[in-house]
Amino acid sequence: MRRYFDTDSAQRPLVLIVGGGFGGLTAGQRLRRASVRIYLADRQNYHLFQPLLYQVATAALSPAEIAQPIRQILRGQRNLRVGMRQITGVDLDRKVVTFPGGEGRYDYLILACGATHSYFGNEHWQEKAPGLKTIDDALEIRRRILLAFEAAEQEEDEAARRARLTFIVVGGGPTGVEMAGAIREIAAETLPRDFHHLSTHTTRVILLEAGPRLLPMMHPQLSERARRDLEAMDVEVRLNSRVTDVDSHGVKLGEQQLAAGNVIWAAGVRAAPLAATLGVPLDDAGRVRVAPDLSIPGHPEAFVIGDLAAATDPVTGKPVPGLAPAAMQMGRFVADIIAREAKDNTPPAPPPRPSFRYRDKGQMATIGRARAVAEVAGRRFGGLVAWLLWSGVHVAFLVGFRNKLFVLLSWLWHHTFFASGARLITGEQEVPVKRLRSDLNGDDPV
Amino acid sequence: MRRYFDTDSAQRPLVLIVGGGFGGLTAGQRLRRASVRIYLADRQNYHLFQPLLYQVATAALSPAEIAQPIRQILRGQRNLRVGMRQITGVDLDRKVVTFPGGEGRYDYLILACGATHSYFGNEHWQEKAPGLKTIDDALEIRRRILLAFEAAEQEEDEAARRARLTFIVVGGGPTGVEMAGAIREIAAETLPRDFHHLSTHTTRVILLEAGPRLLPMMHPQLSERARRDLEAMDVEVRLNSRVTDVDSHGVKLGEQQLAAGNVIWAAGVRAAPLAATLGVPLDDAGRVRVAPDLSIPGHPEAFVIGDLAAATDPVTGKPVPGLAPAAMQMGRFVADIIAREAKDNTPPAPPPRPSFRYRDKGQMATIGRARAVAEVAGRRFGGLVAWLLWSGVHVAFLVGFRNKLFVLLSWLWHHTFFASGARLITGEQEVPVKRLRSDLNGDDPV
Repeated sequence: MRRYFDTDSAQRPLVLIVGGGFGGLTAGQRLRRASVRIYLADRQNYHLFQPLLYQVATAALSPAEIAQPIRQILRGQRNLRVGMRQITGVDLDRKVVTFPGGEGRYDYLILACGATHSYFGNEHWQEKAPGLKTIDDALEIRRRILLAFEAAEQEEDEAARRARLTFIVVGGGPTGVEMAGAIREIAAETLPRDFHHLSTHTTRVILLEAGPRLLPMMHPQLSERARRDLEAMDVEVRLNSRVTDVDSHGVKLGEQQLAAGNVIWAAGVRAAPLAATLGVPLDDAGRVRVAPDLSIPGHPEAFVIGDLAAATDPVTGKPVPGLAPAAMQMGRFVADIIAREAKDNTPPAPPPRPSFRYRDKGQMATIGRARAVAEVAGRRFGGLVAWLLWSGVHVAFLVGFRNKLFVLLSWLWHHTFFASGARLITGEQEVPVKRLRSDLNGDDPV
Repeated sequence: MRRYFDTDSAQRPLVLIVGGGFGGLTAGQRLRRASVRIYLADRQNYHLFQPLLYQVATAALSPAEIAQPIRQILRGQRNLRVGMRQITGVDLDRKVVTFPGGEGRYDYLILACGATHSYFGNEHWQEKAPGLKTIDDALEIRRRILLAFEAAEQEEDEAARRARLTFIVVGGGPTGVEMAGAIREIAAETLPRDFHHLSTHTTRVILLEAGPRLLPMMHPQLSERARRDLEAMDVEVRLNSRVTDVDSHGVKLGEQQLAAGNVIWAAGVRAAPLAATLGVPLDDAGRVRVAPDLSIPGHPEAFVIGDLAAATDPVTGKPVPGLAPAAMQMGRFVADIIAREAKDNTPPAPPPRPSFRYRDKGQMATIGRARAVAEVAGRRFGGLVAWLLWSGVHVAFLVGFRNKLFVLLSWLWHHTFFASGARLITGEQEVPVKRLRSDLNGDDPV
């Protein structure tokens, strides 16, 4: 009997997973007992728990507390190999991926390399308004936030000082809401005790949202709750405010200029550039339009999952959201298809495969200490209850017991002593000041 | 009655401290109740616990666990102000320091800006052989160590792979001994479980020392003990081995070439460049030759402490070593002089000041898990006892309860599970390989 995969020296099919985020990692783990060989390629050596990345950017957590080496997570899995490689292209017809210096064949492909920021065609805004996707992004934003206070203290020009202490967050989704709340907290609670000689009450945090409400994917009641909670914390929320330009002075909203020394971009995501190398139809955000089984139409052995996939639930007709739980569900779904075909030793595809269905477990966003909004199983929560839910779910989904423990301790410390634990300025250290206080013992004697 | 310091609108004298390391911080804290105004300038915003920096470089600890914002440490002190400023010059005659964009007067000056690496005139070795003085240094070394394993796994050329896994530490002082031991541990215990497909037994760690023994400042018995302990861990210790060149292939010892992809410099220190701007006599390492009261001869209001000072104990005639306890003793000593003169409202200097005496509390260096050497109160310890001493002393001297707690927990975790907690490769991510395995499913099937 001729078996489908025995052409290649009786080896089991090779499943190549690109990306070690929630989707890729889950798919790899789900294939633990399948008779396949797995190669997981990621350009980083770690899995990053992106939902808590904003807490690294606001100095509450250290990078190592929310990241785990992919090799360590998967070290017990004998049919899987990890490589730190940036996959730069896919040839779907030859079933080959390319990377700097080589290429590799696959029998099954799972593309799970996620999304990056989108500046909607204004990519030159990036330098002035960094986004938040990687640890290096988070450390850069942390550096800018902390340097703003150092610079403001040394700044003699009043307008320049006000601008240094003005933080604009662009985008009212979960990341934007969380960043704005967290910056307001560090500016109102932690830093004033470090900067006696600076009136941190002049700090402004402005959250800009182009649409008519915050958290547009949640129930309008919760959008309203989030807005009220942020305003109670003195975050200025501006809805229907579309940014038309970003420069070194701040942002422009049409005719209006908002002077700000610090702009953080949380407005848009775009699929990773690898999608564009496939030569298949993409949606507006650059995501791959997948078949109901999450494969690329015409290529039953190539799947796309997570933020890289433009998938629609076949029953509700709604797009599958770009959330960690969705990516994990997709990872399990395609892993099960592959495991079944490998077990039956059939070529990819027929008999008809099942369709992916998204089970909506809910959504949540934190706003500040003891403030959050959550939608779980059709019920809506706000305030402390939502915040406890949010904290519990996030610790539960962190990978690794060590990280769970350290994050819990960090939070406990942070909320007890109002002191964040990672207020280090690393990297380049220039304190940019317009007009420097000319004398150490100048107008503000110790 | 004309009082010395009432010329300047009845203000108390301004003490300018340059550097927030052990010496500067201790001096500032000691002046808490003195009737002076203090300005502490540092180019970083944090105090770094340098004795544990090698553990950041070897992925055992996170940067935030061994660093603390200077402002936070000193936030309760009303007569002190902190500024993140790089002081670039001193005019001793005008009693003025300069910094980019301005200058500042002082009544008393305490220079405590420490030391940096010395390549003995071969500064171009720095790129190939980074030293370990700052957090950015440590993260760079961590990146190189972890990338070496990633690259070795993808390297097909056997000689190149061996070189990738060869780590040379130059310098047999405490930092060199600690780095060599820690790299050996991570290579022998932690990483093999992450890299199933790589024989990490081929990892070599070589410690080069130009002199005839390790830890030359300790008793020869302990030098010998350290050598034996390192060799028991499979570190190759080479004494009387002076490096004559460092390039991308490794290091040269005269005629002999040692091929190594990773070279770490722990061989020499040199005073911070600020010393050279003073125009006063320096020693060979660029340190300021201070008077017995630690002031600069001819400038009784300007003191130099810590690693920046070339001081000699007047009774033993021995140089004061470049250790944290010495810097702290010096900080307290000069603070007490200043406090007394401020209290008496006398100008700097007469009546004759006391001379600084170094109280030697001992020295220690760790080698690996449950291995260290220590000299305390004239007694010598090795092995577990020394290691427990070392651990206790280092946690006790860490600044901040949070850091003590987190470091203790990290060590507990590390030593229980043989897993270091911060194995993240951040920054630039290229995996440098000479001849890449051309195929993901190449000669080493999963």
